Formats: sequence, structure tokens, C-alpha cells
Amino acid sequence: MADPINTRCDLMMFGALGDLAQRKLFPALYQLERAGLLHKRSRILAIARNKAETGEVRRILLDKLKEHVKKDEFDAGVADRFLQRVDYQFLDFTNPDGYGALNDWRSTEPSNLIVYMATPPAMYGEISRNLRSNNCCDQNTRVVAEKPIGHDLESSKVINDELGEVYNEDQLFRIDHYLGKETVQNLIALRFANNLFASQWDQNHISHVEISVAESVGIEGRWGYFDKAGQVRDMVQNHLLQLLCLIAMDPPSDLSADSIRNEKVKVLKALRRITPDMMDTHVVRGQYTAGTSAGKPVPGYLEEEGAARGSKTETFVALKAEIDNWRWSGVPFYIRTGKRLPEKLSQIIIHFKPAPHYIFDPDQKHLANNKLIIRLQPDEGMSLQILTKDQGLDKGMRLRQGPLELTFSETFETDRIPDAYERLLWEVMKGNQYLFVRRDEVEHAWQWVDQIMRNWDDSGVPPKRYAAGTWGPVASIAMITRDGRSWYEDA
Amino acid sequence: MADPINTRCDLMMFGALGDLAQRKLFPALYQLERAGLLHKRSRILAIARNKAETGEVRRILLDKLKEHVKKDEFDAGVADRFLQRVDYQFLDFTNPDGYGALNDWRSTEPSNLIVYMATPPAMYGEISRNLRSNNCCDQNTRVVAEKPIGHDLESSKVINDELGEVYNEDQLFRIDHYLGKETVQNLIALRFANNLFASQWDQNHISHVEISVAESVGIEGRWGYFDKAGQVRDMVQNHLLQLLCLIAMDPPSDLSADSIRNEKVKVLKALRRITPDMMDTHVVRGQYTAGTSAGKPVPGYLEEEGAARGSKTETFVALKAEIDNWRWSGVPFYIRTGKRLPEKLSQIIIHFKPAPHYIFDPDQKHLANNKLIIRLQPDEGMSLQILTKDQGLDKGMRLRQGPLELTFSETFETDRIPDAYERLLWEVMKGNQYLFVRRDEVEHAWQWVDQIMRNWDDSGVPPKRYAAGTWGPVASIAMITRDGRSWYEDA
Repeated sequence: MADPINTRCDLMMFGALGDLAQRKLFPALYQLERAGLLHKRSRILAIARNKAETGEVRRILLDKLKEHVKKDEFDAGVADRFLQRVDYQFLDFTNPDGYGALNDWRSTEPSNLIVYMATPPAMYGEISRNLRSNNCCDQNTRVVAEKPIGHDLESSKVINDELGEVYNEDQLFRIDHYLGKETVQNLIALRFANNLFASQWDQNHISHVEISVAESVGIEGRWGYFDKAGQVRDMVQNHLLQLLCLIAMDPPSDLSADSIRNEKVKVLKALRRITPDMMDTHVVRGQYTAGTSAGKPVPGYLEEEGAARGSKTETFVALKAEIDNWRWSGVPFYIRTGKRLPEKLSQIIIHFKPAPHYIFDPDQKHLANNKLIIRLQPDEGMSLQILTKDQGLDKGMRLRQGPLELTFSETFETDRIPDAYERLLWEVMKGNQYLFVRRDEVEHAWQWVDQIMRNWDDSGVPPKRYAAGTWGPVASIAMITRDGRSWYEDA
Repeated sequence: MADPINTRCDLMMFGALGDLAQRKLFPALYQLERAGLLHKRSRILAIARNKAETGEVRRILLDKLKEHVKKDEFDAGVADRFLQRVDYQFLDFTNPDGYGALNDWRSTEPSNLIVYMATPPAMYGEISRNLRSNNCCDQNTRVVAEKPIGHDLESSKVINDELGEVYNEDQLFRIDHYLGKETVQNLIALRFANNLFASQWDQNHISHVEISVAESVGIEGRWGYFDKAGQVRDMVQNHLLQLLCLIAMDPPSDLSADSIRNEKVKVLKALRRITPDMMDTHVVRGQYTAGTSAGKPVPGYLEEEGAARGSKTETFVALKAEIDNWRWSGVPFYIRTGKRLPEKLSQIIIHFKPAPHYIFDPDQKHLANNKLIIRLQPDEGMSLQILTKDQGLDKGMRLRQGPLELTFSETFETDRIPDAYERLLWEVMKGNQYLFVRRDEVEHAWQWVDQIMRNWDDSGVPPKRYAAGTWGPVASIAMITRDGRSWYEDA
């Protein structure tokens, strides 16, 4: 694998003046600089459709770094050193003639090249073709494609076909920034380095799994954009299904990108298709109405600025996913995600089955299962719920539920937790695809969620209402209660 | 089961002016008073061979309570209320005629009676016979017998026969105060309420177990007493084998005293007898020489005050115990205990087997096993050693070993942890024998350790030396190293 510290690696950033680049990508590159992980002669070409000079762009970038890098991590000397690497090139992405300038920029020194497309996905095809026709890329160029790859299976195929015309799959780094989160990668270490968990990770030992990604914010001024997508496209098709794959996949034989991604695809292929007759028991679609968020009254989804009347777009979805394979037969994965929920929270909860026989006080039998709670945010960490003896003298052999806790930020306090984009950019530089999404993953994920959205369209049933600041429609609680279970927050 | 709060329960304390009674038993009874767990008319008869008045004895007890109860747990009002329950009776235990006074003391109100023998075990027979001949006890009397029950199998049988002449086994509460420790009882909750552990508690999932009970103190002025016993009789035959039983026993069908004790006896019976030819590989006998303790020079065992020349008594022992049954075949239990070790520490470590396949960096393979560490002291609690992903950006998929921690005193901070004797006295009052040692347990334990001591006697090989303040003879490290393992402290 490439060694980015000792091998020069240049980067072309398309959409360099856009929100993502300014807010996430340049700050992440700054952090790599600060950590000494960039080769000393690596250069970055910021590319955008605005006419501007390099000096001007560097000044903008400096302002944005100051804004988006944590104060105690900002160092003016590092920022200066970093910005000296950055050149700017004005480019109309649709004009093939402009691309020659990109070639002029490239050094004669051999180096790896990364093309980062932080542009709308609709442009990926055109940019790629223009790069090729101007010989700006070759078989060794690594190409980073931001999500969303389409809004359904068909449109994703169009984009992937366009990318596939120019690049091989092993050149393509499709971003799902969840995969860059340390806690998400930690799922691999946790599952496969710990036999205590590895040996119990199946339907013999696990009763069910919960995956919750809750947002407390609403639409944040992007009503029009969001309304075309909805929560399933925006969160389930990518992030939640990726989490589900990492939790559910069979152990890969090694950590190579394709070993891992092959296992993830196997999970996606084994996901039971949600047919129209399953919609009542397996899917809850919700849309928030006016309510309260962080103690303040907030409008409903249909009253947000720019809202169109009568939209049926979901701002919440709860799903009961079933995986038809040997490992997970009979083990539902309850997943839910929504906006305007009571708190910002991402967590995965593995519910282990109780012991086969129970010998403690009958009135405590409801306590009797172990849970592994993996918190992605806030306070990345994990806790294992176990039962111990209650200490009180008058308690006899009474049980108490208590956590074994590991909070990463406390335990490993000397290390900062890198932002997802730092990790992802670093892996692109190393040429390691294991944290990136392969074409077949994208397509199988779309296929599964497309069916759900098609069922909604066909039935015409509107989303269920939930007041902003609550945990979604009551139907979501009913869905899990019917199985004799409850969402962890309600427990 | 009896309810000691609502049923009057009187207690005769033989040896009431002795060290154990003053230091442990009366403070424990005071705590029961303080917790409101004593029936309002329950009375205590302090019995000893000193001529004294009740008032005088109450004053002595008050002084001792002030000395041995923690300051913030001492309440003058509670102490006064408690001491009002106490009467004193002078008695020459060997004089049958004196016992009539005990009958005079008893109330006409129906009540349970506990006879606590905090005397040398040699007196148990005589006291018991005298109690019976004076009708001071009946089939409902509960009798508490302090350890040691003999110094080998034969002498224990003599004592148990004498007790058995007067009482039925279900009246007898043989003390091993380790069983009263909350963390020791917690082993039962931990093992059988948590399927995460219960389902892995066998030779398929566990490679080996360590049990260490280390003392930093030396002989503490009782050289003559200790030299007759040695570390095996003093610690292994009772405490360490009890811990081993609780860790190793098959799950009992219920929590009744006999269900639990039946399972413990099964373990003791399955302990592989240590034959003379196994002594080199399975047993290390040690005796400390001059060294350092808590930064100060301390004398060797043979230089202690009152020491006799040439004693071969062991102050340290390390054993590799093997249990020949289905659950534990091939899983050694490494146990060790000693005086003048570097710290005071009691812990049990369950070493889980590594995952069947390893996919992380080869140079980290040595990290790859989970450990459950159960600390009995200091800081009662437990931690689960797991592997997580190392957070550093430049680390790639590197592992880090970190603990999931549960410290009882912190987690359950509202509760004080009761002293072992509080728990034990409370269970005697309830008539629950599950924390007390049955005759066959005592005898099987003696049988196993007798063989070891017989091998020592036969071979005449002297104990190996270790400097005070070290972890015992190097042979103890060699013993576990030969199996490719290490004691946890050395890891």
C-alpha cells in the first residue's frame, strides 16, 4: 500500500469553494498537515467555477480554517505551511478546453494523484470525461466521489456507469463519511478481535439489534433539497445500512477492502425484501408537526420556510429489517432515524439472549439480558450492561443492572479522535478502499430501500405525524412492542 | 426462610471477649442494629471465661466499637441501643454446671437461638455437649462454627463428628468469611445472571484461570501459630478452594444452599489429585527471606520474633490445579497466595481464548485475548479487558487493549459495602446456609491439600526462598511460563 508520507501525493479538489470543502475537507487536510502526514512536496489544486487568484483563495481558506478548526488545534504556522501547498484554478467544469490548465499544474516529479469531486454528483460524468480527454488522469489516479450516488437504483446506475466509463472500480473511493468515524471502524476491532463477542455474534446468542440515529435538528433551511430525498434516502440507504452491514457481516478472512466489502454485500443481498403486505408491521413513516426542540417551540415540517403543501416526505422512519441467512435468522434489526427527535444520538445496541435458566428472584426476571451499547455520538464509547449482585445487606441475592463503561474520550485522553474526513482522506492517500463504498453495495442498498419507497407510493398512505421533540410516531413504539421489546430509550 | 426483623432471634456468643468477637462480630452486629435489621426484642448473651459484670462488658464493647467501626458509621445512640441488648455471662466452658445460667437468660418468648462459637475449635465438642446436656439447644438452634475446622482431614473429622453428635448438618453454619464478601457472592450473580459469561464459561471459551490472594504483611507476631499451619492450611484449603469452587462449579438449578453446595462439592471431587511426580510442575512452595515491604527493610520468616530454626513451613504457595470434568478439561487454574508479596491484592482472572482466526497486525497478536478481572480487594469491582481500535490517525487498524470498568464503590456509591461478617450473621439469622461450608466440602478440600503436604513431607525438599516484597520464588513464574502464560502482574 502507498505510503503518503514518503510518496508525493497531489490532490485536485473540484468544488473547492463549496460548503463541504470549506467546512470539512480543507480542515481535514490541515489536520493531516498538522500531524505531519503529508509528503513535504505534495500539492493541492483547488478548483472552482469562481474567477479568483490563488492568494485570494488562500485568504478565504485561512478564514474558513480559523472558523472550522478547533481553537486549540489551530496553529498559524501550520496553517501557513499548509496553504503554501494550495494553488487555485478557475474552471468551468463543462468546458473541456479549460482542463489543460490542470495538466500544466502537475509536476514532472512522479506522484500519486487524487481527484476529489466535491461537486453535485450530476457533474461526475462530465468532469471524468473531461479529465480523461485531457489526459489529466490515468489508471493510477484515485477518484473520490461524494454522496449521494443517485436518488434510487436507476439514477445511481447512471452515475456509476459514467464513472465506470473512465475509471476502474479499484480507482473509485465513494464516500460514506460514517465509515470514517472512529467508532464505526471500531466495530471491526470490537467484533473480530474480541472472541468474547465474536463467539456470540449470532442468532444463538443475540435476540435483536437496535440501530438508532436520531437528530434533534429539523430541516435547517434546506427544505427543498430535503423534500426531494427524505430520511430513507438521506440516512437509511447509506449510513444506517452501512452500520447494519458492519454489525451483521460474517467475519472477513482478512482486512482487505474487498474481503470486507464482499461480506457487506452478502448482508445486503440477504436483507429480506419488504413487500407491500409487510408495510404495516415492518415500516413506520413519520413526519414531524409543530412541537418543542431544546425547550423552544418549533414549526412542523409542512410549516418550515419554503415548505410545499401536502408533502408526504418522511422525516422519520422506523424499520424492522430481517436478514435471511444462517447467522441472523430470527434476529430482527430494528432501525430508526429521524429529525426533530428529543436528542442527537447515534447508537447501536446488541441485545444478548438471556441465560437458558433463571435462578434469581422472579420479580427481577425482566432484567435478565446483557446489552452491548455502542455509542457513535455523543461521547463515543461503549458500555456493556451486566447484572451484578445488589450490595445492600438487606437485599439478599438481588440483582442490579450496571454498566461496564468505556468512553473513548476519557480512556484514551491523550489522543484526539480524528474527524471522519481526516481518516477518509488519509486512507485515499494510502490507496486503501476498505472505508469506501463499492458499486454493488450502493446498488443493493438502493434496491432494498427503493422497494420501501415504491410501497409508499403505491399505497398512498400519508406519513404518521409526530410532534417535534418526541421519539417519532407512536406506531414506531407499537412496532417493537408487538415483538415484546422496546426501544432502549423507553426501557 | 426466617425473617429476622419480625422474628425475635437471640444469640449466645462464646468467646465474646476474644479478638474476633471484639474486632469483627460485635461491630457487625452493631451494623445490623444500625440498619434496623434486628428484631426489637432480640438479645445477645456475651459469654467468656473472664469474671465481669454486664455493665463492665458493655463499656469494653463500646470502646471496641468506637475503635473498629468507621467514624462516619459510628452513632452513639445506635451503639447505646445495641449495647442494651447485650448481657454478659461468665462461664468456664469446661464446667457443665455453669451452663444452667444460659437457660436462665433465655426468655419465655418464643425466639430463634443462635450459638456462635468464636472459640478455639478444640472447644466446639465440649461446648456442644454441655449445651445439649443442659437443654440449652434443640433441633432449631443454629450453630456457627469458626474456622479452622481442623488442620487436616483427620482432625477435621474429629471436630465435625463432635458437632454432628449434637447437631444436624442443617443446623451448622461453618464460617469461611470469604463467602461473606460481597464480591465473592457477586460471582454467583455474575456467572449465572449474565448469559454473555454463562454461555462462555467452559473449556471451549476459557484458556485458563488465575486466582491470586496476595498479602503484603508477614507473620504479624503470630509466628508460632502460623508455623503450625502454613499458607496451604491457612489460605488454600478454605478461601482459595472456595473461590475456585465458585468460579468452576456447574450452574445450580436454584439458589438453595444445597444446590449450590452440591455443585461446589462436585468441583472438589473432580480436582485432580496432585501426586508426587506432579510436584515439580504443579506446586511451588516458598518461604520469604529478608527483603523490603512498603519501602522498609523487613526480616525473613526464619528471623521473625519467636521463629524456630529450620522451619519448612510455606509462606507462599503456587499451584496448578486441574479439574477433571467436562467443563474444565484442559483448563488449568493457577492459584497462588503468599505473605510479604509486593501488595495486598485478591483477584480472579478469567482468560478467554482468542478468536479462532486473527486478521489484525501480526505484531499485535499477543494482545488477542479477552480477560475478565474480578477484584476482591482492594477496590472491589471488575473489569473486562477488550480490544478496541487505536484512535490515532496514523495507526490504521491497530488494536489497543482497554478495560471496561466497574468499580463497585464508585458505581453504587449510595450503598456501603457490608463487611463479610455482617452478611454472614444476617444469613445465619435468616437461616440460610448458602454462604456456609458443608461438612463434605471441608473434607474434600482437606483431602486435596493433605496430599500436597504429604508429598512435601515425604520428599523433604525445603521451600524455595523469595525475598520479602517480591512475587514469590522464581519457580512460580517458571511454572506458568512453561505453559506459555504469565501471571497477570507480570504481563
